Amino acid sequence: MTEFGFIDSIKTLFAPLPDNGFEGIGDDCSVLSVGGGESLVFTADLLTEGVHFLRTATSPRELGRKSLAVNLSDVAAMGARPVATLLSIALPADAADAWAAEFMLGYRELSEEFGVTLAGGDTTRSLSGLTINVTAIGRAADAHLKRRSDARPGDVIFTAGELGTSGAGLQDILAGRCDTPAAAVHRNPQPQVAEGIWLGSRPEVRAMMDLSDGLASDLKHILDRSGVGAEVAVEQIPAAPGADVRMAACSGEDYKLLLTAAPEAAERLAADFRIRFGTPLHSIGRITSGPGLVWLRNGKPEPLDWHGFEHY
Amino acid sequence: MTEFGFIDSIKTLFAPLPDNGFEGIGDDCSVLSVGGGESLVFTADLLTEGVHFLRTATSPRELGRKSLAVNLSDVAAMGARPVATLLSIALPADAADAWAAEFMLGYRELSEEFGVTLAGGDTTRSLSGLTINVTAIGRAADAHLKRRSDARPGDVIFTAGELGTSGAGLQDILAGRCDTPAAAVHRNPQPQVAEGIWLGSRPEVRAMMDLSDGLASDLKHILDRSGVGAEVAVEQIPAAPGADVRMAACSGEDYKLLLTAAPEAAERLAADFRIRFGTPLHSIGRITSGPGLVWLRNGKPEPLDWHGFEHY
Repeated sequence: MTEFGFIDSIKTLFAPLPDNGFEGIGDDCSVLSVGGGESLVFTADLLTEGVHFLRTATSPRELGRKSLAVNLSDVAAMGARPVATLLSIALPADAADAWAAEFMLGYRELSEEFGVTLAGGDTTRSLSGLTINVTAIGRAADAHLKRRSDARPGDVIFTAGELGTSGAGLQDILAGRCDTPAAAVHRNPQPQVAEGIWLGSRPEVRAMMDLSDGLASDLKHILDRSGVGAEVAVEQIPAAPGADVRMAACSGEDYKLLLTAAPEAAERLAADFRIRFGTPLHSIGRITSGPGLVWLRNGKPEPLDWHGFEHY
Repeated sequence: MTEFGFIDSIKTLFAPLPDNGFEGIGDDCSVLSVGGGESLVFTADLLTEGVHFLRTATSPRELGRKSLAVNLSDVAAMGARPVATLLSIALPADAADAWAAEFMLGYRELSEEFGVTLAGGDTTRSLSGLTINVTAIGRAADAHLKRRSDARPGDVIFTAGELGTSGAGLQDILAGRCDTPAAAVHRNPQPQVAEGIWLGSRPEVRAMMDLSDGLASDLKHILDRSGVGAEVAVEQIPAAPGADVRMAACSGEDYKLLLTAAPEAAERLAADFRIRFGTPLHSIGRITSGPGLVWLRNGKPEPLDWHGFEHY
């Protein structure tokens, strides 16, 4: 069974239970309206040694930052402001006091950068590998929340940054080149927290999520949840220096925002984004009535067997 | 460094950061007031193979229940109603589809019993052991929240059930006797959710927590947080059948509530509890102006080198 197959079976299993006001599984975060026009959002990510990171290729400080970054990215993808995390960490004997202290320094650095409090968690020893779980909590005005399910035919599809750097960095690391700029980005992704909050405040932004598994895989979640299709022009996919377009579309862990915007306001949105952040929103295609994701090259459909990254 | 030493160093490290309205680390849950006289509470527990459970000695279904139970117990200990959880699970290759499906059935059984929704989480493979993190979210009227920090000299100390069954069960399991009633309780603890919510609604209840590491260790957290001491009469500690008083005081994972109550209302509280739940509150001693925890036998102080259970 794949990760998504397992998640689907869990959704079915739990569907008959009361939801207690929580929106169900299927977005970057779960949403709970708390009244007064405000909602909280919740997300969790589990990182395990050998699957999500190699202790030989990342410093504890970098890992502390990254464990938090991937969760802040999920909160930002909802248009919410991250406010708190709970950190659980299982430490093997060979990653004890000094290692843990360095990890916490990295975790704190990024917490401080985004004004996020550490509200709790758990710490235990591990008889095998190192495992880290972070649960992040965000807060947003109800009206600012962005979901995967709100894309509409005609929407312009944007990415809020260039893609493929993290994938190129992972290739470097696996080839033993750990000191390249791309490898540094892979180990130390920067979540688009300010960008997500700003995009949340813009009503012309409809669907939003963060790119963690790669465009080719992640965009399909928006299409599935919104019941729409998409045409993406491969020559418009913003491949970062060092990455080709296939890597930009298929490699994971870029943690850039992927969004759709109402067509009549899309140009203005991109212009305002550039004024605010100094970087462009990259238009890569359009939402269609579907079904499915169609890759276009020079305006013509091209069958490409492109898939995102699968951790599971 | 011990688990509590590590947690203290983390608290110091994060103290300068903004709290965003969250009460800091140090109670069973972190509290966030959400307005309208209501609060949410948050807790996380990480269970790792070989440290918290043996896969050879517990079924996946039992482990699914227990992973949830220990978190619901923390929520109940605040006087709050559990409303949602996020479940993260790292599955090794030898605990894949069938194992995971059974685990989820157990997790669902207890979720359904207490009306708790599954709001999210993460699932991944593991190259080494099985690791489970549950984050639980509860909800309570602000006025019903109970903390470790509110015990006052003169308060009566109660446990909301007999102690030591889980410890006796662990001894049985480690000796290869996995089919004893105590072993079943160890593998399948029942959180005192209804009791916690009811005790939360009683203003004469001052401090409360759940007994996870053993009375000898856990009561000290109430004393530390409240700046008080305690006298506990060892002959009043309610040892469960199969456990002696030392085991009742020192073994972990009973998940019974420990609370203090205003002396003038304590007798009435215990009587009402018995009417409501059919079981007694066990009075074991008194809060003093302190400092420290004093064990009494026949009314006389007895130096006992009793400590709780340390997972770390």
